[in-house]
Amino acid sequence: MSGLDFLYLKQEDVIKAGVLDMKQTIEDVERVFRLYVNGEVIMPPKNLIDFYKDNEYMGHIVSMPCYIKDEVNVVGIKWAAGFPRNPARYGLPLGIDVIILSDPESGRPLAIMDGTIITAMRTSAVTGLAIKYLANPASRSVGVVGAGVIGRTTLMALPYCMSKLEEVKIFDIKSEKAKELVMEFKSTLPIEAVGSLEEAMRGRDVVITATTSSTKFIKPEWVEDGYLCIQVGTNEFDDQVVLKADKIVVDNWVQIKRYGRSMLSQLYLEGRISEDEILELPLIVAGKQKGRESPREIIFFDSFGMACEDVIVAYRIYRQALDQGLGMRIPLWERPLWK
Amino acid sequence: MSGLDFLYLKQEDVIKAGVLDMKQTIEDVERVFRLYVNGEVIMPPKNLIDFYKDNEYMGHIVSMPCYIKDEVNVVGIKWAAGFPRNPARYGLPLGIDVIILSDPESGRPLAIMDGTIITAMRTSAVTGLAIKYLANPASRSVGVVGAGVIGRTTLMALPYCMSKLEEVKIFDIKSEKAKELVMEFKSTLPIEAVGSLEEAMRGRDVVITATTSSTKFIKPEWVEDGYLCIQVGTNEFDDQVVLKADKIVVDNWVQIKRYGRSMLSQLYLEGRISEDEILELPLIVAGKQKGRESPREIIFFDSFGMACEDVIVAYRIYRQALDQGLGMRIPLWERPLWK
Repeated sequence: MSGLDFLYLKQEDVIKAGVLDMKQTIEDVERVFRLYVNGEVIMPPKNLIDFYKDNEYMGHIVSMPCYIKDEVNVVGIKWAAGFPRNPARYGLPLGIDVIILSDPESGRPLAIMDGTIITAMRTSAVTGLAIKYLANPASRSVGVVGAGVIGRTTLMALPYCMSKLEEVKIFDIKSEKAKELVMEFKSTLPIEAVGSLEEAMRGRDVVITATTSSTKFIKPEWVEDGYLCIQVGTNEFDDQVVLKADKIVVDNWVQIKRYGRSMLSQLYLEGRISEDEILELPLIVAGKQKGRESPREIIFFDSFGMACEDVIVAYRIYRQALDQGLGMRIPLWERPLWK
Repeated sequence: MSGLDFLYLKQEDVIKAGVLDMKQTIEDVERVFRLYVNGEVIMPPKNLIDFYKDNEYMGHIVSMPCYIKDEVNVVGIKWAAGFPRNPARYGLPLGIDVIILSDPESGRPLAIMDGTIITAMRTSAVTGLAIKYLANPASRSVGVVGAGVIGRTTLMALPYCMSKLEEVKIFDIKSEKAKELVMEFKSTLPIEAVGSLEEAMRGRDVVITATTSSTKFIKPEWVEDGYLCIQVGTNEFDDQVVLKADKIVVDNWVQIKRYGRSMLSQLYLEGRISEDEILELPLIVAGKQKGRESPREIIFFDSFGMACEDVIVAYRIYRQALDQGLGMRIPLWERPLWK
């Protein structure tokens, strides 16, 4: 027996290999949603480990394994950390993710790569698909709350899912962050930073929250008929928004139900929503459930993230990196000690 | 913000850092069992993905995350493949494992390393602890079935858990494999290869099976009073051995119960054993449950593997590698694209 090596891709390689292509990311995620509904995806529920110090939540790490069968034929895992205090405390990003891809025939690792950008891109690709399948087709105005990493990828996704986009209002409690994103996107989007939450929320068709808040701050009176509300964080919209919504849609109910810190799992445990009424975006994408049925419906969408989204994007990046000769080959062993 | 790197250790580095020290591995696992019982370990049940081709089982990959708090203070995951046909088909070992260790304060990866040798070492360290806590103190004779990688590490563990060891009989259906191990260990162990399963089993104090068999082959009439039976594989001992045993001990019942391919989960689902009667080795090590209470008891021990065993050993290897300046620093990014 001889050496076994894999392809290692640092974040710079992942970028060169095309991770910033949002159009392709949306296509990847749409495809894997259909594969998932068709039983081509084996995805054990993701496991979270939460970290506390003196009873205060500090962050979490999630392990997300997934096997995509047949025409894709890859198995992988994302090991994803989210520590909100990283930027201030350590000069590190909030999210730090590693992805391993392996060969389903032998189990050997094919690639290890930075997964941090992949996480942000696929998260907002899901937002894009939620808009495509759940927003009013005539939607023209979007409000975004949160100008962090996911705020940015949300803006990247909007052009691919809203054909009539006329205005984007963005708000962040740190106003300079919203202004920075406006500078970054003003040549490609009709975007403006606003000074209050209410301004970002009122008079929109689609509103998106992407914050790390642990307390709910979106008031029910700001949500009007016909709205699509997209909660990317875990606790941003007031319970009353969910309770007054005509439809609740999630990415994957089994996972959300298991996650005690999620708002929907709390409402479910308190008996205030029934799981029978919860729809799933992959089923809507695959035509197995109905999305929006009238222009006046309020739809609330909550996503928690699915491993299949990461694995399909990471596999594209791996193959594009191979094609372009990117990355570094690293041995798992030069020669295995034991056969 | 600037670069973020981690330590990468290929198998050769893991070996140089001391992974072959079985005495230390047994101490590590004994320590983490106590920490686990004391609530210092957060370990979500491990997730298996099984791979089939034309309805035939080909192999599996397991994801095993774990956080060891306080005095150890590390979080990690093992991504472990087991594909029995690898040696014949691809010239690869059956097991191919990767471990990631991360910092519980920020989630940043500390190390990525080959986990293949760690898996074998900690698996047999558990066997060693099972012997230490469950075998008759006067035990002198051991039978080992299976001369693969785990057969070898089993032999490495015996001197540290049996003070009166006088004979080791080893059997493998490929007799040359058993003979190879005898050559390797004859200077340190009273070891002999035998020509039949029955010879390996009869007249022993401790019998250990470490095979990939999917059918049961250890007959109940070979198991005598006072035996400690250690099943390292999943389906090696006849059901009747389990049913006639005075005590059934496992490493972690929650995990075994969830794993449909395991013999004990099948017996449990069929209502042939009750979960009330199942003991756990970590609780016995920590003095919370009783192990052997009489020299005539038959005890059946089944282990499935716990992530905390991998993480504590991997963390020792990481620290020893740092001390010795081993391995390669690899950037996750030179400079993060998004802060």
